[in-house]
Amino acid sequence: MKKIINDPENVVQDMLNGIVAAYPNQLKRIENTTVITRMDAPVPNKVGIISGGGSGHEPAHAGYVGKGMLDAAVAGEVFTSPTPDQVLEAIRAVHSGAGVFMVIKNYTGDCLNFEMAAELAEAEGIQVDQVIVNDDAAVENSSYTIGRRGIAGTVFVHKIAGAKAERGASLAEIKAVAEKVVQNVRSMGMAISPCTVPQAGKPSFTLEENEMEIGIGIHGEPGIERKTIQTADEIAEQLTSKILEDLEVPRGSEVAVLINGLGATPEMELYIVNRKVQEMLNEKGIRVFETFVGNYMTSLEMAGCSVTLLKLDDELKDLLSAESNAPAFRK
Amino acid sequence: MKKIINDPENVVQDMLNGIVAAYPNQLKRIENTTVITRMDAPVPNKVGIISGGGSGHEPAHAGYVGKGMLDAAVAGEVFTSPTPDQVLEAIRAVHSGAGVFMVIKNYTGDCLNFEMAAELAEAEGIQVDQVIVNDDAAVENSSYTIGRRGIAGTVFVHKIAGAKAERGASLAEIKAVAEKVVQNVRSMGMAISPCTVPQAGKPSFTLEENEMEIGIGIHGEPGIERKTIQTADEIAEQLTSKILEDLEVPRGSEVAVLINGLGATPEMELYIVNRKVQEMLNEKGIRVFETFVGNYMTSLEMAGCSVTLLKLDDELKDLLSAESNAPAFRK
Repeated sequence: MKKIINDPENVVQDMLNGIVAAYPNQLKRIENTTVITRMDAPVPNKVGIISGGGSGHEPAHAGYVGKGMLDAAVAGEVFTSPTPDQVLEAIRAVHSGAGVFMVIKNYTGDCLNFEMAAELAEAEGIQVDQVIVNDDAAVENSSYTIGRRGIAGTVFVHKIAGAKAERGASLAEIKAVAEKVVQNVRSMGMAISPCTVPQAGKPSFTLEENEMEIGIGIHGEPGIERKTIQTADEIAEQLTSKILEDLEVPRGSEVAVLINGLGATPEMELYIVNRKVQEMLNEKGIRVFETFVGNYMTSLEMAGCSVTLLKLDDELKDLLSAESNAPAFRK
Repeated sequence: MKKIINDPENVVQDMLNGIVAAYPNQLKRIENTTVITRMDAPVPNKVGIISGGGSGHEPAHAGYVGKGMLDAAVAGEVFTSPTPDQVLEAIRAVHSGAGVFMVIKNYTGDCLNFEMAAELAEAEGIQVDQVIVNDDAAVENSSYTIGRRGIAGTVFVHKIAGAKAERGASLAEIKAVAEKVVQNVRSMGMAISPCTVPQAGKPSFTLEENEMEIGIGIHGEPGIERKTIQTADEIAEQLTSKILEDLEVPRGSEVAVLINGLGATPEMELYIVNRKVQEMLNEKGIRVFETFVGNYMTSLEMAGCSVTLLKLDDELKDLLSAESNAPAFRK
């Protein structure tokens, strides 16, 4: 294992300190927790939006904390759900009386721990609601999931729920728009090389020198198939086709596109994938409202990418375009 | 070689098409060239700012094209200087009568080709001036360089010269502020794994499983020393110390900090490096005006990072903070 880290047991602590040190006017860490909030949390009369999950997906989730996006992010150990007490700290930190909304990726541990935290918070008189994101069109059920996994499409849920909350919407209104995003967002990923959890010290899976895996999860969970690596155009075609088999996007629809790197993929390659995705959408008469290319939901140093499409209506376009000062999603 | 590409001979063309396809309202490609300009170029009565160099450093350089930053970027083949005729196309595309300013990284090929293009442009009656960026504090002279290399600090030159031009400054005023940035910016990089130029098909150098190289260039050019990999804190300490030996930054000074990933470095690791860099600056009484963490000047899929410090005065702070809509540097 070759990594630029200190003690493998301490990577999450070191990282969280490094994040708040980078944005000291915007972000703060709640002492003795793994919770990072925006500087002005709790924001009076605003629903607090929280998300989080295992570490190793940076800039998710702390990079999405800011005005117009998340009020707090809670980090677990690498690829490990945050504990209910840490999630509860996040809820408390953003609670100003208007309620707290949780964006949860569909992994069994995340669902259990966020929901347990919500129960504890409700016992303290804090109203909590949630959405479960399951945008990965690859597989039903997986190593850590019943149903479909939540992956890069989660970033669009953060953005849109966050914008809605910033405008003073109620918990019910935020839930409604977040559910609308979840219904209209799908992702598909692939990888050409694995990643190594620092505390494990060796790769979580292996791929042959000429092999790729289509539909792989962001923790290296099994995907749809392993086969000989193909061209970028063939890869883009498979990822996009699988999404469009699953999500009805009629000719004339508008979408947001996210070409996401898994951590070790050069931006050059993401743009090459984007070229083909845009060509396919254009051929199908699907209009692209906005495109995002970069590392948004990573898997440590995994090499690979995912494609996400979000079908938009006027409300979603408006909220996607709203101001955000989150470090990893400035608008 | 395992990459998400099509024909290795075609990666730059595919990538440039993928970039303009991502930002069709902001960027356009000059047909039959490797030049990408902002949509509204040439901007009347404004000095045009161009930069560029070999491909493989994405988001540099096209990602820095936008209002408030570059007017155009010109791409060479991977790790290869753009030809004079391509640079000339960029100059012509942004020329509106107020002159054109070139930001050149100090590599022999880049210097020769940009300067030859400037001569050709001047023969057409276009006034051209330039700055040579040589921020790398690692080594004097190198594989492709007489003097010091230009690396991640170049991004600050783009930003500040671009902001100055956007405000209507003259060619001489822009040159003056760009020279000021060059005098006050230093970088140091390191790598733990090499990268592979697509057309070459094999890594440009090798490192042992437990080895790192300090002071390496962004094309894999030799650095200061190879040694057993150390902790992130020790790495951060060496990079920062070397910069501070070279650039006088008295107690009470203000700096901008850039923790740059070389392409395959997880953001987690960049934040861990940032933690130590900020601690060191804090101990030395150096104030941090703004910190940037991410992939700004990459080397394909090299794993490693660089630290850049820019010593600021009021003018530089003002220009660094000015608005930019460049895809990779939104302010």
